Amino acid sequence: MRLRNDPKAEEKLAEHPTVVVQEPENYKGKWKTIFKNDNPIHIEIGTGKGGFVTGMAKQNPDINYIGIERFTTIVVKAMNNIVDADISNAKLLNVNAVNILQYFEEGEVDRVYLNFSDPWPKDRHARRRLTYKDFLDNYKQIMKKNGEIHFKTDNQALFEFSLESFSKYGMLLKNISLDLHKSDIEGNVMTEYERKFSEEGMRIYRCEAQFIS
Amino acid sequence: MRLRNDPKAEEKLAEHPTVVVQEPENYKGKWKTIFKNDNPIHIEIGTGKGGFVTGMAKQNPDINYIGIERFTTIVVKAMNNIVDADISNAKLLNVNAVNILQYFEEGEVDRVYLNFSDPWPKDRHARRRLTYKDFLDNYKQIMKKNGEIHFKTDNQALFEFSLESFSKYGMLLKNISLDLHKSDIEGNVMTEYERKFSEEGMRIYRCEAQFIS
Repeated sequence: MRLRNDPKAEEKLAEHPTVVVQEPENYKGKWKTIFKNDNPIHIEIGTGKGGFVTGMAKQNPDINYIGIERFTTIVVKAMNNIVDADISNAKLLNVNAVNILQYFEEGEVDRVYLNFSDPWPKDRHARRRLTYKDFLDNYKQIMKKNGEIHFKTDNQALFEFSLESFSKYGMLLKNISLDLHKSDIEGNVMTEYERKFSEEGMRIYRCEAQFIS
Repeated sequence: MRLRNDPKAEEKLAEHPTVVVQEPENYKGKWKTIFKNDNPIHIEIGTGKGGFVTGMAKQNPDINYIGIERFTTIVVKAMNNIVDADISNAKLLNVNAVNILQYFEEGEVDRVYLNFSDPWPKDRHARRRLTYKDFLDNYKQIMKKNGEIHFKTDNQALFEFSLESFSKYGMLLKNISLDLHKSDIEGNVMTEYERKFSEEGMRIYRCEAQFIS
């Protein structure tokens, strides 16, 4: 995502500490204290402008959502979305997903969402793709047993790579859709990218991948 | 595939017993005697008019191909293809794939090709799809350890179903292509269907699924 840099972004985030969690490493193993309940925790990695976590949080009040986004200027947009929606079950972390083990305890997360992740098209950058095995190692570690990754993308090559990566990791593939918006899926919450791409007639690919051992 | 029935089809097949193997149950465990060599055996289930096995056999003289097709009238077309090509490493069986265990011994086959199989779109017919688990049981039984299924289709729903079926069976998915004719694949031999559909601009889906236990 490309946005003009906002020099006051840090300041703006600090205005809503109940939405953008400050010093999140302090909450490793203690996310329930942030949400003040025992509901399942679903995280979205690369949350962008936050349309997805906001929409999901409204649709599913009994699930806690945490959106992770490394670009501060974009987190401001997501924050404003959540503030406007006036919901308490969606939070944001302005951190890099490569460090995710610093923020979550083993088994603390119930589900991981990856939506329209950077495709890193060059072979030599394959390790940076959020579905590369090193990332899967991390997701597995922070997730409950048999946890699921729910993945959407418009990028054909990234989807092909990811299906193979999930399979090689021994994960179970479920609910594959090779043209999501022409399928009979219900309750799909669109991201900003998804709305734009699908309006342009592009296919959206989706699957669920479950850790099974 | 729909073809006008040819009342003389049986007669025609009998004219080329070196191509259309008669009483194939007699060769269970003995296919090497048919080919008179120890080369790997690859089978195509639902071989249609035989363009694929003929093309593959020409491209790969050190592999033996067996095309399986239940419709006698269509087998005549495949037979003529092979006779015209004047090759000895492609044979045909005019049998139903549901009975495949009658024709091949455990571990006798090196690879299974499924090309443009009938999608059986109704849920209640899912068991008839050639990638349904009961068929996978059979392929696994007749194939060598770590054998692979190579699968192509233009049918999105069948491809989605098949990826999930392979995954659920614990198979490893490899070389997935969601738009084969826009990929950089080399040596692809097209079936008659594939040529028609891809000329109409339809996507061709392809993957390889390997048995790993």
